[in-house]
Amino acid sequence: MKKYFYCNGKILDSRKPAVLINDIGLLRGYGVFDFIRTHQGKIFHFADHFRRFTRSARLLQLRVPLRQQATEKMIHKLLRKNKVREASIRLLLTGGPTADGLSYTDPTFAILIEDIYTFPQKLFTQGAKVITYPHQRLLPTSKNNNYIQAIRLAPERLRQKAVEVLFTDKDKILECSTSNFFIFKGDTLITPRADILPGITRQIVLRLARKKFWVEERAVKISELAQASEAFLTATNKFVMPVVMVDKKKIGKGRVGERTKWLMKSFAEYVEHYR
Amino acid sequence: MKKYFYCNGKILDSRKPAVLINDIGLLRGYGVFDFIRTHQGKIFHFADHFRRFTRSARLLQLRVPLRQQATEKMIHKLLRKNKVREASIRLLLTGGPTADGLSYTDPTFAILIEDIYTFPQKLFTQGAKVITYPHQRLLPTSKNNNYIQAIRLAPERLRQKAVEVLFTDKDKILECSTSNFFIFKGDTLITPRADILPGITRQIVLRLARKKFWVEERAVKISELAQASEAFLTATNKFVMPVVMVDKKKIGKGRVGERTKWLMKSFAEYVEHYR
Repeated sequence: MKKYFYCNGKILDSRKPAVLINDIGLLRGYGVFDFIRTHQGKIFHFADHFRRFTRSARLLQLRVPLRQQATEKMIHKLLRKNKVREASIRLLLTGGPTADGLSYTDPTFAILIEDIYTFPQKLFTQGAKVITYPHQRLLPTSKNNNYIQAIRLAPERLRQKAVEVLFTDKDKILECSTSNFFIFKGDTLITPRADILPGITRQIVLRLARKKFWVEERAVKISELAQASEAFLTATNKFVMPVVMVDKKKIGKGRVGERTKWLMKSFAEYVEHYR
Repeated sequence: MKKYFYCNGKILDSRKPAVLINDIGLLRGYGVFDFIRTHQGKIFHFADHFRRFTRSARLLQLRVPLRQQATEKMIHKLLRKNKVREASIRLLLTGGPTADGLSYTDPTFAILIEDIYTFPQKLFTQGAKVITYPHQRLLPTSKNNNYIQAIRLAPERLRQKAVEVLFTDKDKILECSTSNFFIFKGDTLITPRADILPGITRQIVLRLARKKFWVEERAVKISELAQASEAFLTATNKFVMPVVMVDKKKIGKGRVGERTKWLMKSFAEYVEHYR
């Protein structure tokens, strides 16, 4: 995490305490966030991220104290002050201090500048593994702070050399802990539509995919994994990442597929030309 | 909240920032807590609360940095420093600062001293209302910080003049957002056993109840509410609180029942003699 961050009207030093112990975000996990990054120094799809952030907030009856334009201006100020051109940006909004652990009045709104995490190149050339776990995120269409399962499962995921946990609900595939999930059956790209976080990268990839493939946004059964020829996931910091193994089972031939490669390339080009 | 609290080896002023912005408890809701109170200046059932706290922590792969005895000593020190004899005590443990939003090494452990919230006497003499909502808490046997639903539903609960939200899962009753739930059918006391937080007050009340009633700890169907003659809930700050209405339906005759009164009295006596 970079030195300077914004919190409730001030630019503060991230190495010093900034939050009261009775913040309802800390005592009760009551908050939402969004995670954005820059490409060529531009904040990638900021309007989409800010709209989603506002929507997440509304689901928790919270209001973002800064408007879109002011937030964008502040992010650029923080990037300059932290002397970075490319970075990850985290927006955080909690209910703020609480007297009774239940009610709140003055929200805590922060903007954090973080290093971009780069995944090993091998994952993109040879494909990644994911493991499944039955879990339905609370209020899944909102990016709320409740990531207990993702964090709790991280040691087991690492032990199994998996890049993500794919959450399932009964016989259905939902999403990964911080990524959306897709499969190809021949020329048809399939991805869950409901009970997931509507990813920004997901949206762009679907738009690109429609040029070349059939696209189905619908409930996806776990059993369909056996019929999939290719799979991949999308996320702000993973772009299009091929998936060649789910638990102990190969997807298709267990190699990065041609259709996924085309999407990886298309997305990379889209990002490269983003202004 | 009282002025002085404990955090990672220090006694701090609760009106000043104490927590780093990148605490995983704040960014990801990754933490557990416990809530205790004093009676006659004694910490009520501290060993039970501390054991549960340790168990909640373990479910999140966290370790409580202070032992039971040292924690108890620190609570008494905080009570003296805050010049209070009777208080509520909150233990809080998060993963601590995180660089990547996923991993952590140095936990944040805090002890907060809070005012005791006293519920209106009317709720005990005339009985309370609860509203139902379908929700299964994450890792329900642990007291983790994920209280998004309880807080989100608070405005609607208050609008309906209800004291609690009773969570249901499919056709079953589980627990309230911060209380356990019980019904009487004649001389049989019935309360859910699985997928709930094992309340300390619940345990004591069940022990007292066994002297006089049949006790069944088992899955309870929502449809059984219609057959219940009495109902009540238990919590550290609510003791035994009679419930006379669930949503728009009366429990029994809609009055505080004799069996519930007996338990309220027994628990009050137990508390009075607690040393």
